[in-house]
Amino acid sequence: MYYYNSWEAECKEPFGAIKVGQTMKVNFKTDKEKVEVKFIIRRDFGKRYEFPMQEVKEGEFKVAVPFDVGKGLYFYYFEILEPSDWGKIKQFYGCSGIGGEGVLYSNENDVKPYQLTVFSKEDLAPDWYRDAVFYQIFPDRFYNGNDDGKISNPKPNSFIYGSNSDTPFYVKYENGDIARWDFFGGNLRGISKKIPYLKELGVTAIYLNPIFSGTSNHRYDTNDYLVIDSMLGDEAEFKVLLDKLHQEGMHLILDGVFSHVGKNSRYFNINGDFGDNEGAAKNPNSPYFDWFKFNDYPYDYKSWWGIKDLPEIDKDNESFRQFIYGEKDSVLAKWNDLGVDGWRLDVADELPDDFIQGIRENLDTYSEKMLIGEIWEDASNKISYGARRNYILGGSLQGCMNYPFRDIIIHFVNNQRSSHDVAYQLMNLRENYPKAIFYNNLNNLGTHDTERILTMVGDENNSLAISMMFVLPGVPCIYYGDEAGLDGGKDPENRKYFPWGDISQEFYNLYQTWSKRRQEEVTLRHGEFSVFFTDKVLGILRYTSDEIFIYVVNSSKEQVNFGEEKITYLQKLSFLHDVNEKLSGLTISGKSSLNLKIKF
Amino acid sequence: MYYYNSWEAECKEPFGAIKVGQTMKVNFKTDKEKVEVKFIIRRDFGKRYEFPMQEVKEGEFKVAVPFDVGKGLYFYYFEILEPSDWGKIKQFYGCSGIGGEGVLYSNENDVKPYQLTVFSKEDLAPDWYRDAVFYQIFPDRFYNGNDDGKISNPKPNSFIYGSNSDTPFYVKYENGDIARWDFFGGNLRGISKKIPYLKELGVTAIYLNPIFSGTSNHRYDTNDYLVIDSMLGDEAEFKVLLDKLHQEGMHLILDGVFSHVGKNSRYFNINGDFGDNEGAAKNPNSPYFDWFKFNDYPYDYKSWWGIKDLPEIDKDNESFRQFIYGEKDSVLAKWNDLGVDGWRLDVADELPDDFIQGIRENLDTYSEKMLIGEIWEDASNKISYGARRNYILGGSLQGCMNYPFRDIIIHFVNNQRSSHDVAYQLMNLRENYPKAIFYNNLNNLGTHDTERILTMVGDENNSLAISMMFVLPGVPCIYYGDEAGLDGGKDPENRKYFPWGDISQEFYNLYQTWSKRRQEEVTLRHGEFSVFFTDKVLGILRYTSDEIFIYVVNSSKEQVNFGEEKITYLQKLSFLHDVNEKLSGLTISGKSSLNLKIKF
Repeated sequence: MYYYNSWEAECKEPFGAIKVGQTMKVNFKTDKEKVEVKFIIRRDFGKRYEFPMQEVKEGEFKVAVPFDVGKGLYFYYFEILEPSDWGKIKQFYGCSGIGGEGVLYSNENDVKPYQLTVFSKEDLAPDWYRDAVFYQIFPDRFYNGNDDGKISNPKPNSFIYGSNSDTPFYVKYENGDIARWDFFGGNLRGISKKIPYLKELGVTAIYLNPIFSGTSNHRYDTNDYLVIDSMLGDEAEFKVLLDKLHQEGMHLILDGVFSHVGKNSRYFNINGDFGDNEGAAKNPNSPYFDWFKFNDYPYDYKSWWGIKDLPEIDKDNESFRQFIYGEKDSVLAKWNDLGVDGWRLDVADELPDDFIQGIRENLDTYSEKMLIGEIWEDASNKISYGARRNYILGGSLQGCMNYPFRDIIIHFVNNQRSSHDVAYQLMNLRENYPKAIFYNNLNNLGTHDTERILTMVGDENNSLAISMMFVLPGVPCIYYGDEAGLDGGKDPENRKYFPWGDISQEFYNLYQTWSKRRQEEVTLRHGEFSVFFTDKVLGILRYTSDEIFIYVVNSSKEQVNFGEEKITYLQKLSFLHDVNEKLSGLTISGKSSLNLKIKF
Repeated sequence: MYYYNSWEAECKEPFGAIKVGQTMKVNFKTDKEKVEVKFIIRRDFGKRYEFPMQEVKEGEFKVAVPFDVGKGLYFYYFEILEPSDWGKIKQFYGCSGIGGEGVLYSNENDVKPYQLTVFSKEDLAPDWYRDAVFYQIFPDRFYNGNDDGKISNPKPNSFIYGSNSDTPFYVKYENGDIARWDFFGGNLRGISKKIPYLKELGVTAIYLNPIFSGTSNHRYDTNDYLVIDSMLGDEAEFKVLLDKLHQEGMHLILDGVFSHVGKNSRYFNINGDFGDNEGAAKNPNSPYFDWFKFNDYPYDYKSWWGIKDLPEIDKDNESFRQFIYGEKDSVLAKWNDLGVDGWRLDVADELPDDFIQGIRENLDTYSEKMLIGEIWEDASNKISYGARRNYILGGSLQGCMNYPFRDIIIHFVNNQRSSHDVAYQLMNLRENYPKAIFYNNLNNLGTHDTERILTMVGDENNSLAISMMFVLPGVPCIYYGDEAGLDGGKDPENRKYFPWGDISQEFYNLYQTWSKRRQEEVTLRHGEFSVFFTDKVLGILRYTSDEIFIYVVNSSKEQVNFGEEKITYLQKLSFLHDVNEKLSGLTISGKSSLNLKIKF
């Protein structure tokens, strides 16, 4: 009766998010006569606007709306007046909940609108980033590169694991507080020494968990932003690492932890490690005093999620901003000048928008520096601290850690979510994100904050998950050790030491093959993205004007014959006939994936 | 009216414990006339015997009782028949509770008898032991002697301390079980390297906590009695240590832990570390199966104090006895032959008497091997597992760890017990123990099982405690690090790593001075022992036929002038006049000790 599909070019152009200044062309269809249609837009938490649609030919209504009133989220749907023998019936056509084809609503209050993301700027990433295969390293757990095998500068009141194969363990007091931090003793020299290993694996860039001076093994409790943690090495060794990477055409991004610092940092200094008269907690006249919020000086202070080890920073404080990114000798300036290629912002959703923008402005004064952020949800519409956030609308983050993809992949390969639902979710994410961001997202199957992929999906499904990560748009990021067959649940189990003597050939080969494949196949890096599905199978299309890369994954245990299955494409594309032909008669066994190519 | 004093030669000969076959001469006095006196003896948990006493002169009753009816504890008192104008009054004269002069009782059931220890054999120690200054080493915490500072063979699933100054910490699960063992990495090579240090301190013998293969840092969970723990070194290194010690005229005793083994021992092997078919818990046909008691095979087994890490051994098992001390290649044979000079039996009060005797017989086949035991109380009368025990009555232990002395010293210097009470307790212990045992006891101010002395008595009293330990009869034993100023409460705080870079000169000098003094003064090693006291001061007399060593300790904060104080001697000795003269006019300031010598 009525039809609109946000994913079809015949209904909406351009696809997905649009840039400020662009005009959105909408086409609404019906087989009814004498209908009036209005295009309704609501600004995010704001006013309702209506645009009458013009019936350009029978049953086809059009409107072209210029979006030149600022970036942000917009929500739209249709108001329909339909003649009847008694009066006019008012109905609404809105989103079913996840984009694509919509549904009718009788009551405006019930309408689920379509999301329209309007961004100010295309946040293209540098080529090195877009083409990268990333590798995330939790530095204490990767490799100790000291020739004598000794651990550099163990910290007082900490523990060193007796064996590198030990399972990580939190050493706590009875009240649950951490009593001692536990270390394996990996260091920067170890990473330098393993560059050939990483190159061989196909890795081209490294995301390093924090390396600045800290108390814990994770070093999210920064004690000094300007100093490399002495267990990891020193500035000279870090420079060696950067230089060696760059010589190999590789890159490195750091973890920027600016939401909070360590309670024993030079800035807070609760125990006086930095002197009796230094730091906010020891001296109210400290230059750092205003960075923190004290309820009752000095022991009752605002801390990150109530964790007293991590005094929270007031990110609106101008001196802190100057220190991090503003002044000539800022933290960012120091490390950028040394050669760091970018940053991953820790808890980006807890940082003020203009703080992130300040960081981005700093990075933009260089060429080729990259900024991504830790966001766990669909970053296009996340509400954080009571407000919609502008992470990805231009001039802020260039990409996010792609936890939504991880979630989709795990649920699909484990048969916990249907191919139908997964296909819709993927298209919906593609639709919501500005394209550049969508392709800049860092796809991780696991990180230091999640269970490892092998533990989540098991041996049987691991190869499916790995291939999906490499085929989906975005920059793949291998969590150190996943390629070696490490398993482990949440922190601390996901932080085992890399099993150098016992690397799984099966998984290593898979990661290596896919990493190299990604370097070879331009479609995997830059190709457009669409999806299809059958009852059991998910299909991914990556295509350019030259070729189509078809990827099919069967998460069921049964063999699937394409001839017998109904294929649903989520977009009408010009070459679907070719795809159909290529697939026809194809058989894919249970728990497997395959890929095909069509050259035009 | 009536008088008997077990400490006076005019009342009882010989003093204290007597040897089987000796005759005890008793002299009871009264100023009453027409009195009849009987000497009553009760055997321990046994019959009542009476011996009429003969009035040899007016008011003086004598009896001589030959003790040729076996070793054991005997208890005695006096029955008195006194004429009156109506009939005869029966009364009893017994112990006040702690030896010395007695008191009258009207009712026999109320009488506290005097204890008489009757032993079968004088358990003289080898000279090297009697003359020794011991030093107890908890091996993981003393010194890592590896040239490169690395820790030898850290155990899987264990922790190494980040810094040698870390405070020891038990790493536990939430349920309180040990999750990981914690190590500093001291080793045998480290002890070898520190022999010059020990010699300089005045040490002549070492008591080593367990060194056989174990899982924990204390190694009381033996995994193999025939193998040195690989973190500590190997048999060759142990031999080097023994040889170096012997070259220096020094000696070493080991900790013999035979009550239980580790659950992961080769004998029990619950986790299969020694193979799937080895050990009692993996194979009911194992030669070790009968060493253990299973309630429900294999996981419900009898363990030491219910600690499942420590399966308990059935010490009555003949194959275990053969293995430990019986057979040609027994555990004791192996280590004795290598050069070990003696053993300290762990939880000796939980070992069957004849098991200890079997060990002693093994040691007696060598010359100069020593056997002491862990007993926490007055070992002469301890009841353990419902029976009086024969530790010190000959042919069993040659000495005990002297926890009663530690208790007395701490309470006295802290002013928690009066000089009167302390003097009486000391004399009572002297009386109860066979003399050889009393002089063989290992006097410790602290061990791996107690708080450190510095923590118990504080800076102010520490020097008093140290001097008391060296002046009292017995063999002084310095707990590693006490001389360096280590403090710490109970386990694990008492097991800090030795602070090599920060040795307290004050305490080191005290220990060194007293160690050397003990070597010089024959009275401190072999002299007889008696005590006296004033209101605030405790005096100790050590004397030979040539000289008297007078030691005086004032635990109060006030200065004491001997002229003004009444001195109470607990024994009438021929030279008390000389002592009195020496003391007269002497002043001793608060919280201090002094010593004087009289040469005959």
